[in-house]
Amino acid sequence: MSVGGHIALTPIDDPADSRIEVFRDIRERDLVGRGGFIAEGAVVLDQLLASSFFQPTALLVLRNRLAGLMPRLAGLRPGVPVYVAERAVFDAVAGFPVHRGVMAHAVRRPEKRPLSLPAMTARGALFTVAAGISNHDNMGAIFRNAAAFGVDAVILDETSCDPLYRKAIRVSVGSVLRVPFIRLGAVEQIVEELEGLGVECLALAPGASVPLQRWRPAPSSALFLGAEGEGLPPAVWTRMKALRIEMAPGLDSLNVAHCAAIALHHAFLHRSPPAR
Amino acid sequence: MSVGGHIALTPIDDPADSRIEVFRDIRERDLVGRGGFIAEGAVVLDQLLASSFFQPTALLVLRNRLAGLMPRLAGLRPGVPVYVAERAVFDAVAGFPVHRGVMAHAVRRPEKRPLSLPAMTARGALFTVAAGISNHDNMGAIFRNAAAFGVDAVILDETSCDPLYRKAIRVSVGSVLRVPFIRLGAVEQIVEELEGLGVECLALAPGASVPLQRWRPAPSSALFLGAEGEGLPPAVWTRMKALRIEMAPGLDSLNVAHCAAIALHHAFLHRSPPAR
Repeated sequence: MSVGGHIALTPIDDPADSRIEVFRDIRERDLVGRGGFIAEGAVVLDQLLASSFFQPTALLVLRNRLAGLMPRLAGLRPGVPVYVAERAVFDAVAGFPVHRGVMAHAVRRPEKRPLSLPAMTARGALFTVAAGISNHDNMGAIFRNAAAFGVDAVILDETSCDPLYRKAIRVSVGSVLRVPFIRLGAVEQIVEELEGLGVECLALAPGASVPLQRWRPAPSSALFLGAEGEGLPPAVWTRMKALRIEMAPGLDSLNVAHCAAIALHHAFLHRSPPAR
Repeated sequence: MSVGGHIALTPIDDPADSRIEVFRDIRERDLVGRGGFIAEGAVVLDQLLASSFFQPTALLVLRNRLAGLMPRLAGLRPGVPVYVAERAVFDAVAGFPVHRGVMAHAVRRPEKRPLSLPAMTARGALFTVAAGISNHDNMGAIFRNAAAFGVDAVILDETSCDPLYRKAIRVSVGSVLRVPFIRLGAVEQIVEELEGLGVECLALAPGASVPLQRWRPAPSSALFLGAEGEGLPPAVWTRMKALRIEMAPGLDSLNVAHCAAIALHHAFLHRSPPAR
């Protein structure tokens, strides 16, 4: 069945159909971390279709949502199969009741070259460094804020969790598919590499002497976000410029993603105009 | 058994023991919304013990966490029972594996009178109004930010969810037990009441002509936060001062709790010194 030009719709009546293998037991898949990932829902699908970094390999659509999704599906590359199923088949494949009516399996675009930090820095860049972020909600929220405030790339240390985990994609509202990211090694190495490029490295610390509002970003800056609870290793943040988010006395610190929202909003307002 | 002065420790060996009825099936309890609530974990317990609004009626402690918790338990009112159980009993009572080693059942302090908005406004106040906030993570995060940035009270409209739901307490890191809150009626009535008191009512709207950083809070201000997705009803926000959080073009709006973090941080920095 083919409609709207090149869109190839394939009805699926049997949850065991091998053509929809990539959508099977997607909760479990999160745990084993096989290649590719699942993007759920129309809003995230939009981000996927607009992504320079990722592309869908197949879609699974709930039959009663198909008509509403057709305008979006026009953006699919020719040849990407669109499987269509009723609710019972849809949920049986996924392994749990899915609230959203569309899932895309996606992979990294093969032609895409890795980010070049030197080239980005030469143009002037704002980076966010996630160092030891282990919570998928926080990771997703960091990307959503990074997208909102024009962060050029998110750098992940070796211990941070995967932004392409289902929950992180969902909380980011698909921003993990649009904001460039790169995974490097230990946070100490990331500081060294960025400092070597002339990037201003910043940490947020409750006891820092400089309040955030006094800071004006350098042509290239990197905001480091440390692990929930412990924060950045002292050996790392003591060598950086530290900024304080002022708050009421006697309180627990803010959530890391909320800190990021406040600091990135400030950076967005005060960045030098980019050279590009 | 009694140690450390007045602390009455009672071992519990049988999950069916009627003395620990208030801790039974606490997930289910969330759904039925009976009187009282459950505070979990040592950090939230600290907030409960310091709360002017709520007080514990009973504690259930994992045996191997008891020694570490003893300094905190010294803050308990005499007569509040502390039940002590092994892991198997603890989890069987709660109805699921509990990660934290202490749970407190708590109620509102009977002697506490409701908040007086006129009295607070007369002293100069910063309010946050949750209007149609239905997600417990967002509600908890709004309270955590309200605590960090010195909000005097959170006002809930009739449709917002309960800040004393387990997940909201947890995400707030106990801030819902410290930041005063009051539930009123429809959001339209809340605007009228606050305007009648001379409180500046503010909405955040992507299309607003005034950017947040231009705003300076009035002696008393109220930041209205609308429902995830729809935002505030147009009839409500069009009568208020609207502020825009500047962000990169072409993007989905920020999460409501992240908006609150940014706007409340700004308000905290620029509030007039309170008269009290």
